[in-house]
Amino acid sequence: MSGIKRVVLAYSGGLDTSVILKWLQVTYNCEVVTFTADLGQGEELEPARDKARLMGIPEEHIYIDDLREEFVRDFVFPMMRANARYEGDYLLGTSIARPLISKRLIEIARETNADAIAHGATGKGNDQVRFELSAYALDPDIKVIAPWREWDLNSRTALIAWAEKHQIPVPKDKRGESPFSTDANLLHTSSEGKVLEDPWEETPDYVYSRTVNPEDAPDEPEYITIDFEKGDGIALNGKAMSPAMLLTALNDLGRTHGIGRLDLVENRFVGMKSRGMYETPGGEIYARAHRGIEQITLDRGAAHLKDELMPRYAELIYNGFWFAPEREMLQAAIDHSQERVSGTVRLKLYKGSAHVVGRKSPNSLYSERHVTFEDDAGAYDQKDAQGFIKLNALRLRLLAQRDR
Amino acid sequence: MSGIKRVVLAYSGGLDTSVILKWLQVTYNCEVVTFTADLGQGEELEPARDKARLMGIPEEHIYIDDLREEFVRDFVFPMMRANARYEGDYLLGTSIARPLISKRLIEIARETNADAIAHGATGKGNDQVRFELSAYALDPDIKVIAPWREWDLNSRTALIAWAEKHQIPVPKDKRGESPFSTDANLLHTSSEGKVLEDPWEETPDYVYSRTVNPEDAPDEPEYITIDFEKGDGIALNGKAMSPAMLLTALNDLGRTHGIGRLDLVENRFVGMKSRGMYETPGGEIYARAHRGIEQITLDRGAAHLKDELMPRYAELIYNGFWFAPEREMLQAAIDHSQERVSGTVRLKLYKGSAHVVGRKSPNSLYSERHVTFEDDAGAYDQKDAQGFIKLNALRLRLLAQRDR
Amino acid sequence: MSGIKRVVLAYSGGLDTSVILKWLQVTYNCEVVTFTADLGQGEELEPARDKARLMGIPEEHIYIDDLREEFVRDFVFPMMRANARYEGDYLLGTSIARPLISKRLIEIARETNADAIAHGATGKGNDQVRFELSAYALDPDIKVIAPWREWDLNSRTALIAWAEKHQIPVPKDKRGESPFSTDANLLHTSSEGKVLEDPWEETPDYVYSRTVNPEDAPDEPEYITIDFEKGDGIALNGKAMSPAMLLTALNDLGRTHGIGRLDLVENRFVGMKSRGMYETPGGEIYARAHRGIEQITLDRGAAHLKDELMPRYAELIYNGFWFAPEREMLQAAIDHSQERVSGTVRLKLYKGSAHVVGRKSPNSLYSERHVTFEDDAGAYDQKDAQGFIKLNALRLRLLAQRDR
Amino acid sequence: MSGIKRVVLAYSGGLDTSVILKWLQVTYNCEVVTFTADLGQGEELEPARDKARLMGIPEEHIYIDDLREEFVRDFVFPMMRANARYEGDYLLGTSIARPLISKRLIEIARETNADAIAHGATGKGNDQVRFELSAYALDPDIKVIAPWREWDLNSRTALIAWAEKHQIPVPKDKRGESPFSTDANLLHTSSEGKVLEDPWEETPDYVYSRTVNPEDAPDEPEYITIDFEKGDGIALNGKAMSPAMLLTALNDLGRTHGIGRLDLVENRFVGMKSRGMYETPGGEIYARAHRGIEQITLDRGAAHLKDELMPRYAELIYNGFWFAPEREMLQAAIDHSQERVSGTVRLKLYKGSAHVVGRKSPNSLYSERHVTFEDDAGAYDQKDAQGFIKLNALRLRLLAQRDR
Repeated sequence: MSGIKRVVLAYSGGLDTSVILKWLQVTYNCEVVTFTADLGQGEELEPARDKARLMGIPEEHIYIDDLREEFVRDFVFPMMRANARYEGDYLLGTSIARPLISKRLIEIARETNADAIAHGATGKGNDQVRFELSAYALDPDIKVIAPWREWDLNSRTALIAWAEKHQIPVPKDKRGESPFSTDANLLHTSSEGKVLEDPWEETPDYVYSRTVNPEDAPDEPEYITIDFEKGDGIALNGKAMSPAMLLTALNDLGRTHGIGRLDLVENRFVGMKSRGMYETPGGEIYARAHRGIEQITLDRGAAHLKDELMPRYAELIYNGFWFAPEREMLQAAIDHSQERVSGTVRLKLYKGSAHVVGRKSPNSLYSERHVTFEDDAGAYDQKDAQGFIKLNALRLRLLAQRDR
Repeated sequence: MSGIKRVVLAYSGGLDTSVILKWLQVTYNCEVVTFTADLGQGEELEPARDKARLMGIPEEHIYIDDLREEFVRDFVFPMMRANARYEGDYLLGTSIARPLISKRLIEIARETNADAIAHGATGKGNDQVRFELSAYALDPDIKVIAPWREWDLNSRTALIAWAEKHQIPVPKDKRGESPFSTDANLLHTSSEGKVLEDPWEETPDYVYSRTVNPEDAPDEPEYITIDFEKGDGIALNGKAMSPAMLLTALNDLGRTHGIGRLDLVENRFVGMKSRGMYETPGGEIYARAHRGIEQITLDRGAAHLKDELMPRYAELIYNGFWFAPEREMLQAAIDHSQERVSGTVRLKLYKGSAHVVGRKSPNSLYSERHVTFEDDAGAYDQKDAQGFIKLNALRLRLLAQRDR
Repeated sequence: MSGIKRVVLAYSGGLDTSVILKWLQVTYNCEVVTFTADLGQGEELEPARDKARLMGIPEEHIYIDDLREEFVRDFVFPMMRANARYEGDYLLGTSIARPLISKRLIEIARETNADAIAHGATGKGNDQVRFELSAYALDPDIKVIAPWREWDLNSRTALIAWAEKHQIPVPKDKRGESPFSTDANLLHTSSEGKVLEDPWEETPDYVYSRTVNPEDAPDEPEYITIDFEKGDGIALNGKAMSPAMLLTALNDLGRTHGIGRLDLVENRFVGMKSRGMYETPGGEIYARAHRGIEQITLDRGAAHLKDELMPRYAELIYNGFWFAPEREMLQAAIDHSQERVSGTVRLKLYKGSAHVVGRKSPNSLYSERHVTFEDDAGAYDQKDAQGFIKLNALRLRLLAQRDR
Repeated sequence: MSGIKRVVLAYSGGLDTSVILKWLQVTYNCEVVTFTADLGQGEELEPARDKARLMGIPEEHIYIDDLREEFVRDFVFPMMRANARYEGDYLLGTSIARPLISKRLIEIARETNADAIAHGATGKGNDQVRFELSAYALDPDIKVIAPWREWDLNSRTALIAWAEKHQIPVPKDKRGESPFSTDANLLHTSSEGKVLEDPWEETPDYVYSRTVNPEDAPDEPEYITIDFEKGDGIALNGKAMSPAMLLTALNDLGRTHGIGRLDLVENRFVGMKSRGMYETPGGEIYARAHRGIEQITLDRGAAHLKDELMPRYAELIYNGFWFAPEREMLQAAIDHSQERVSGTVRLKLYKGSAHVVGRKSPNSLYSERHVTFEDDAGAYDQKDAQGFIKLNALRLRLLAQRDR
């Protein structure tokens, strides 16, 4: 079948990808290399190793990598430099992880001389697109196997029956229909499906796993500072941290204060709307802090250009075009703007909200001397405003003269 | 001096515009027509009439207009259709009121055969630009007098001395330096200057006047619904309301729950950065609700185009180009998208936040049938995704083949 | 097979669509309704009727429509208002015709109770996408048959053999491989494939059919005028004409002077590059004239916004999204700008070029009084420029102060 | 007066800047440093030295610099990478030279400890803005003297009278009103004013100085090739050339064939429309060639993003914001796209036109294998198109289902 000899599988160790692992062996009669990434999803990875062994995968074909620092440094932070939010709100937590996974899948395929990769994303979602566009961009000849688009196991019952038939252990809590589907990494946890499918119904509190309910958060606000250097966070409350350490620490703060919950109906790249629940505790705090430091260090021209480019940039990431030239072009523009985005932001965390309450920087463009209502010692000549207005108005006056 | 015979003054009845009124009489030796607008700023207007009389303005030259419905219906709501936020956050509460004031100033100038208008905005801010661009766009031959750019009363002390010299009553609380300067209307209250001038210092709580501190807000969340029809709000909790009634009611809710506070360092059109504090209680709730109803009623193509156009649209309003052709073009595009934006949004208000928790519409584009993880009865063929991905990937693969 | 009972076929009467007609009858065992449109392609349509009859199509199922006026009025002119050019050059002659054909296919399907439509576009090109996106946008339940994607007649030889086997007359000149493939309508003729497939080789002169070689064009330039009303052409050399008449007359002029030839390598929506040759004689003249009249009647803000939106608008048409909400939104913005785009443009046609040499309008915004180097009698105060520059420079100076 | 001690003047040696030189000495009682740049305007510069000496400028304060290579390499070529055209047509020949002149003015001001610069641009045009924005961006404290905005010599007669009164020699041909005003450099010559002020009148042939009338150009076309490396031209007809050499050689070709004439009504930054005549012989050829090489080497995503960003980029240059952060951000994006834009373009020059007729590149993305109408050996699976169309259509179908 297609002559595939060896395939690298994005393997979580859970039921679904275990079924896929077996299905690949049975259907393609090929060797499977498993790749399990630690992206900060908060699960033990060693059980995945054991399960892979049980399925007959030789030790050298079991890859378990801690990608947390690379994830935050090379994917999350560059995206945050753009203040990216999809459709006004979504911080792209799932979208931004996919290209990194594909990158490792392709690297491992090369190391192991595999001729294909496989993933467990369904045929209805965005993730299949993100995985595959990234994979093709990095290796144009790679073959991609997406079992959910191929097999006929299109209900949970069928999947479990197949698992049992093939001696794959099915955990008790997977036997019933799971109430929703989740994805998690250091940036966020998302949930969709099942109880969330009616967009009029409020998301039940038990769907949230990364944040306390704001109503249960502390009654006292907490103040923190984040330091930035060239557009990236480098310290929390004055303590230097690596990218992944910083995001982890912010996640803890966000959890405590119930920050970063989002209930969204969004537009998928494949053409349908879906309703999702996102928790991005640290990311929400970080995103607000980044805007805060930009407020005083970024020129208006740069800031407004960034704002205009952002929706396109976010759409590219959402749609899976991280490795496309136009995303890289936008990144080049964005990164160029961040050279002097350094300084400290102070935030107030309280019952679901993170607000910037102060910002300072050695690179500040804010000039108290210019803005003051008091005597400015000649910093600004108010009479200049007249000419400024007159010439900005000229075309409007010519229009009005014509049109009266 | 300039041959000005009659000038229409945007007159609040406060000290500053009273000084301007007198200064116009003294300096230009001209008649003054006063125009005082009720834009929902929450102040009595009749005292302005009395003061104008005391300054010798004849009854027929004292204009006091209730513009609240026009303000919300023709300015705030159209802007909200665009989801406009300047620099990511600011809901443009001051900016959107200026063109309406200019429109009335020009109308009154025509009614009274005045040859000029005057306003009390300083030469450092955006408001002078907004007033004057709007005025010139509506009457290209109008003369504009901006006393703050002309006179030499450039300190509070000088202003008060001048007032006293000219028998203008100075209220006691105006004798000292006021701690900050404010603007208010039905959409928002803004404050800037003085204690806010250091962007590292947190805005003191006493600066806020329209909202309770979230920490003092009720411990129980409150749920509300807003109904929309063709992109505009029409009812609160099922009760039909006019635009201004609806915004007023949302302001009450926002005040109670401490919603809509914003501390921002923004870029003025005149080229400097300023730090402002904004309270937009009802506007913040309304803006979130509008996005919520768009989530299920707006097609992706329309929604993403709106998101891309929004920063430009917001910038135009901020800079004072409400009456410019390009703003009208963008409005035409935006309004075209709102034809089916009808339905109901449910929000949760709690300690400073307003979150959409449900949305429903007879025009919903959300298709549970398509998005379900269960059997979709043929609504969607997962195999289509393969071709979709393959052709989206083709250019990336050709790139990768070339570049390897 | 698929239960299709009646299909409306876009039928040219040529060999390919005749084969398709027969193939539909044989393969789907269904009734075929033929639709042949006169879009100004310059071919007799009655032979198509005869051929359809010969294939057994009953009279009432043979549709032959003259769509020339609708084509120019409702598709070409609205597009021209936008100054649309794909990838800097292509005037979208093929792209803009497809939605109209789909619109009629769907209308006829409704009239004849057909459950499907069929077209003769291949699986590699843009036209299949344009036909089908338009069809689905107008009738979400329509079935689409694209024989080139289904059958195995994937060489010219196979096609001809199949035709002969099924008694379809094959014209002599179709027996050999045709040197290239063409599409024609009132706006343009395009050719691609075969001798054009090497983008380094110059397009041979015999590929062009709508224009003389500029080297053979008259040695004397010709001057013409075009009158515009609200953004659309209404007269040539002072003589009022309908949209299709005007374009036809401009085509004659363009043919004579060798205007509108374009050799392009373009990016198809399906992901590959192709090399095409386009002749758009009248369209090129018209497009330049439209820009000419806009130069004096359109405000800068409107003009620049149009220029920024144009590439997206052109891409939407090229990709087949004529009936998408975002195209309609952009059209609403563009049309709003055209209200005063009226007047007369004078052009010089000479050996391959059309240049605007004069423009006048009752709505002109050009003010000789303002622009003159001579005494302008106070129209413009040069001193205003200082303030204008000073405030535009302020942010740059603050940057320079920080960065030195 | 303002305490200015030494001013660097952009000095051409012509009558106007000679008057300015004297006027500065007389009015400001300051030292003048003259700066005369060779930007390829085609005039002898040594006479400027003699004139400066005659006005008493010491040898060490007379700067004459050949900036041609820097001009083309660091300003023209980067701009050409963006395919920049203002308002659809103008190749920005004047706009792009101004920042370089300002850069040298500021450098010389530093070398000579001057506290001001001066230029000869009027208060109505764009050049004052371009000179001054660039100067302020490079030295926020520099003073700028713009005599045309200060003095009262606002007619030609007054200027000449002043010159004679101050013993400045007035050439005979300057005594009458000059028929129009010109600017020239290696990229272009522009003319405006006087006989050009009526936009309905055709530009008289005698206004053109850099190109023959196309009607007088050779009756035979000429074919040339230009080689590109990373987005920049490096050779003509296979002969390697420096940037300025290449543009000079293309200017000769363009002159011969009458290429690059443009008659335009454009929108000035200061708010009025003006009518200009431009000749950009080599630039027009180069611009078309650059698009030609991009056609085969640039990915669609990159190409379309460039097209969308271009109008903004061109506007920034036109308005004088070369040294603004947002121009640099856009340049970073554009330059990122040019890494593989290498290869050869073949053009046909004939009677006013330059057309790309062939392009080839080792980096070509054009794949004959994919695009062929013949058997493509599996390069492309036409069946993929169905899924591609189906999912692109999904949102349109959901819309249509809702809206019927």
